[in-house]
Amino acid sequence: MKKIVFLMLILVSFLSFSNTADLVQTNLNWTWTLIGGILVFFMQAGFAMVETGFTRAKNSGNIIMKNTMDFCIGILTYWAIGFAFMFGTGGGFLGWGNFFGGGLDGWNWTFFIFQGMFSATAATIVSGAIAERAKFTTYLIITFFISAFIYPVYGHWAWAGLYGQSTGWLENLGFIDFAGSAVVHSIGGWVSLAGAMILGPRIGRYTNKTVNAIPGHSLTLGALGVFILWFAWYGFNCGSTTTGTYEIGLIAVNTALAPAAAALSALAFSYKLYKTFDIGLVLNGILAGLVGVTAGCASIEPWAAVVIGLTSGIIVIASIRLLDRFEIDDPVGAISVHGVCGAWGTICAGIFYAESLFDPKIIGIQVLGAAAAFQFAFLMGCFIFTVLKHTLGIRVSIQEEIRGLDLSEHEARSYPEFQERI
Amino acid sequence: MKKIVFLMLILVSFLSFSNTADLVQTNLNWTWTLIGGILVFFMQAGFAMVETGFTRAKNSGNIIMKNTMDFCIGILTYWAIGFAFMFGTGGGFLGWGNFFGGGLDGWNWTFFIFQGMFSATAATIVSGAIAERAKFTTYLIITFFISAFIYPVYGHWAWAGLYGQSTGWLENLGFIDFAGSAVVHSIGGWVSLAGAMILGPRIGRYTNKTVNAIPGHSLTLGALGVFILWFAWYGFNCGSTTTGTYEIGLIAVNTALAPAAAALSALAFSYKLYKTFDIGLVLNGILAGLVGVTAGCASIEPWAAVVIGLTSGIIVIASIRLLDRFEIDDPVGAISVHGVCGAWGTICAGIFYAESLFDPKIIGIQVLGAAAAFQFAFLMGCFIFTVLKHTLGIRVSIQEEIRGLDLSEHEARSYPEFQERI
Amino acid sequence: MKKIVFLMLILVSFLSFSNTADLVQTNLNWTWTLIGGILVFFMQAGFAMVETGFTRAKNSGNIIMKNTMDFCIGILTYWAIGFAFMFGTGGGFLGWGNFFGGGLDGWNWTFFIFQGMFSATAATIVSGAIAERAKFTTYLIITFFISAFIYPVYGHWAWAGLYGQSTGWLENLGFIDFAGSAVVHSIGGWVSLAGAMILGPRIGRYTNKTVNAIPGHSLTLGALGVFILWFAWYGFNCGSTTTGTYEIGLIAVNTALAPAAAALSALAFSYKLYKTFDIGLVLNGILAGLVGVTAGCASIEPWAAVVIGLTSGIIVIASIRLLDRFEIDDPVGAISVHGVCGAWGTICAGIFYAESLFDPKIIGIQVLGAAAAFQFAFLMGCFIFTVLKHTLGIRVSIQEEIRGLDLSEHEARSYPEFQERI
Repeated sequence: MKKIVFLMLILVSFLSFSNTADLVQTNLNWTWTLIGGILVFFMQAGFAMVETGFTRAKNSGNIIMKNTMDFCIGILTYWAIGFAFMFGTGGGFLGWGNFFGGGLDGWNWTFFIFQGMFSATAATIVSGAIAERAKFTTYLIITFFISAFIYPVYGHWAWAGLYGQSTGWLENLGFIDFAGSAVVHSIGGWVSLAGAMILGPRIGRYTNKTVNAIPGHSLTLGALGVFILWFAWYGFNCGSTTTGTYEIGLIAVNTALAPAAAALSALAFSYKLYKTFDIGLVLNGILAGLVGVTAGCASIEPWAAVVIGLTSGIIVIASIRLLDRFEIDDPVGAISVHGVCGAWGTICAGIFYAESLFDPKIIGIQVLGAAAAFQFAFLMGCFIFTVLKHTLGIRVSIQEEIRGLDLSEHEARSYPEFQERI
Repeated sequence: MKKIVFLMLILVSFLSFSNTADLVQTNLNWTWTLIGGILVFFMQAGFAMVETGFTRAKNSGNIIMKNTMDFCIGILTYWAIGFAFMFGTGGGFLGWGNFFGGGLDGWNWTFFIFQGMFSATAATIVSGAIAERAKFTTYLIITFFISAFIYPVYGHWAWAGLYGQSTGWLENLGFIDFAGSAVVHSIGGWVSLAGAMILGPRIGRYTNKTVNAIPGHSLTLGALGVFILWFAWYGFNCGSTTTGTYEIGLIAVNTALAPAAAALSALAFSYKLYKTFDIGLVLNGILAGLVGVTAGCASIEPWAAVVIGLTSGIIVIASIRLLDRFEIDDPVGAISVHGVCGAWGTICAGIFYAESLFDPKIIGIQVLGAAAAFQFAFLMGCFIFTVLKHTLGIRVSIQEEIRGLDLSEHEARSYPEFQERI
Repeated sequence: MKKIVFLMLILVSFLSFSNTADLVQTNLNWTWTLIGGILVFFMQAGFAMVETGFTRAKNSGNIIMKNTMDFCIGILTYWAIGFAFMFGTGGGFLGWGNFFGGGLDGWNWTFFIFQGMFSATAATIVSGAIAERAKFTTYLIITFFISAFIYPVYGHWAWAGLYGQSTGWLENLGFIDFAGSAVVHSIGGWVSLAGAMILGPRIGRYTNKTVNAIPGHSLTLGALGVFILWFAWYGFNCGSTTTGTYEIGLIAVNTALAPAAAALSALAFSYKLYKTFDIGLVLNGILAGLVGVTAGCASIEPWAAVVIGLTSGIIVIASIRLLDRFEIDDPVGAISVHGVCGAWGTICAGIFYAESLFDPKIIGIQVLGAAAAFQFAFLMGCFIFTVLKHTLGIRVSIQEEIRGLDLSEHEARSYPEFQERI
């Protein structure tokens, strides 16, 4: 009898200890996740610098404002509606529940903020592709729809199970998108494509079948943005474990090697094409490598990250050239970086899946997921941009565009002491 | 007998395990605190970019130097004196002990560095409000007094108990200032108010009762600064738990929602006032929302963070206009952001205290604490600025001001290739 | 018999609990290490901003590209070869094994990425010293040799034991270089010295024994870079514990106090020399203080960090002046900051070693280590630069230099809307 008491005491002490260490691991996991989320927030600064650096001075304050406001509207919308659609109960097309953060407490808030930062990242991609001509107010409405509906719905299909209240049809098939090549980047990229097509090119971009370069006003700010994005991307990819465990090391390595390799291939390819070491293309190559490795970063070997990087660095340049051939004007290359390389990265996560390399079944599911992202985001983007075009208008007037959006939309000049008048 | 030995063995093993898991949690807590402190350090970069971006090119190197040196002098002073006054034994008006870090070891150093970063943040706020006209050397002396005395004394009243050697009278009353709306921001803001009043406005700022806009030289750098500050603020607020536990999630959510809401209300209010979407006011709105939510971020619900944000975004603009009516010239809006919204946030921490909403008793204590911060910091600021005015001088000469402080104080030009001569 | 079972049960439960808490501590340690590594990555942005800000606009895109590509080539090279030479088995002159990350898994990847970030830091130092005249392609080759051989070999001597497969001769002597004053900074600095000497000064820098100032194009970007570097340095120094334990607090304090003190002494010394508060020298003073405290940051008292800072702030200015006397042109002060203050910091780690202050034996070993770093890196640098000079060429043509490297190497202008034509 007493022995049983002893045994029970031992068992109890075992459980209590185990719980304690487990509790600390839980605390570590969520602390790490929050650190990841904070880093993902900093992507907003990176996007702002990339987009302003690669566009003209006369629009540089406007693009900053768009980047600022899309986070602000995005996070509020995701709190009110988006999270409910993405992670609520139900399943199928979208979830339902937890509107305005209802029912969230404790560590759930950390899960929420991490996801909210991702949502805002998807939204902010679009501003670059439609820069220098999209109306400020209309852009805010587009941001609302991306954060409320487009991102959460596709996110539900691929990631709903992360929260455990429902599961999406893509994840049920075994779809791999660890940190969001499809969910975040290609969704943002395909909405961008719809926007750039419907909005039309900037004045003077294409004349008589020739592409006229419109250089950005500050390569240094653009490069700073790329460095900030890369820095933050370690939080984006490694934080997506939501656990502070040994897996984060390999993810970080892949997140370093892929963009490094992409820079090399973009450097070589740009030299082959233009006989010079093009700065903008190399910087976009890095971003392409980052987007490309994001889906598979936790389930591929480093050599595969290098291959993904090398291919992404070439694909992004080819895509930029192709879009120009169709006279689709994307001032910062957002469609090619996030849309095209997002899709490519999604497929690569299948091709190079370490546990079963080159497995046609896995690749097939990845292709399906990438195609679903394209179809859904592009069509939704076309729908929203078209409706807005025929109601509120999506483009500033020719006079406003020539004058610059800083003056015409904000009565401001970003560099009043340096800037040429127009 | 042997059974007792067994029981003791179990007990011992229980304690030893418990200690081990506790030790790991302690390590996690302080590691997290240090990460928070590192992020708070990065605020220095944010302030530097905001202040330089929102002032003229001819003073942009000078303001950078002030931001650099106030951290350097601030952290050394806090190490030598400030920490001793804030957290030393004794109590009442100020503490006494641990000068030059004496008696600190182990994790105490992490507590010190976290607090030191906060101290430096309070000091750096002032440089913006007195920018473009304050003498460099005098500014360094002001920094010394803030870090040695003003910040630590009020900090002692509100936070001494955190270190456990003494308690302050405000915290004894139950005063809530989780991460420093009052301790850090309003103290910095009210010293700024004293400085801006005694220093007088910049040449040409006010003529015949009209306010002449003096636009900053780089909106993009200013915006970058705001993004850096927001990024670092997650360390500021979430790190103030000094524990890596579940509470940090909610704090992060509040630190995201409040400034987002403030941006929206500032956008709407600026449009109502000026019929344009003012970039500078929206950026200051974000900072106002951050300052406003800082006191209550750990003890309010997200909906309350949204309300605090919405109100802060309007209050900051109203305050900027009010100061201009009194011809108090604050080039970057530091008084309104940190002083006024710091006080408002301190009061809001009482109004929206989740465990007892709208409790007049709690609100009363918050008002008292906010008033004490104003009275102490403003009077101390007036005293120091007045003494310096009549001894070393606090303002550069008219010639120096027109020529620009970069040339007159540093024989440098920040942009020698772009900058107009004057 | 049953009692023995009980005892074993207790023992087993003890061990299992102990293991669990240990496992969580391990997870915490590596999570912290990865966070440190991510911060060290961000140094790339800091270097890029410092180097571009302190050089002319016509070369600002080129220096950005060099900073970008040296990380990309550096991390790939370190993965392929460098890590194998530094941490492989064997010992003596260099290690051997783990090429292309072979044999690495689990937490080893975190160790790898942390070390890889350090390697890239050493490589990136050189670009500043040879800025505005070095050929882009040749620079890439130099980066390859630093990452593949120079850095790993010296790193092997001092740090091989960290990975446990071999030990280096310097660490066997008891050499102290906690976070790399010698391994990272002086290695980078001495290769820079070789490069600057063999490359020769920029056109117009020295005429008739007088030094002509060539001011950088953006003090604000330069200052931003310094803030980013300081921010990242907390990861560099505190992360080098590779454990999330109480030691990180003191390291952070030293990493704050030393550069703060260096800023003060550089401010005073620059005022004494030039009767003005020189912005560039103060910023370089901060970097000198950071480099100086890096070797000893974990084994010195805070007062010693202040002394190291004060001396480093003076030494860096004296060194800059001395190099100019010898007409060695270092546009950003990299040799003085990283080489000279790296050596000084290495020696200071011996002088101020807290457990045995001013111990001649310890100091002797530190001097030996510093001298070995100089000899090895400078000679290797001379060899590589000389070979490249007589083969591919290391310097652009006079016409290209005058025209600017942005146009001549990249057919780009960094600020097409502001920049003067030449």
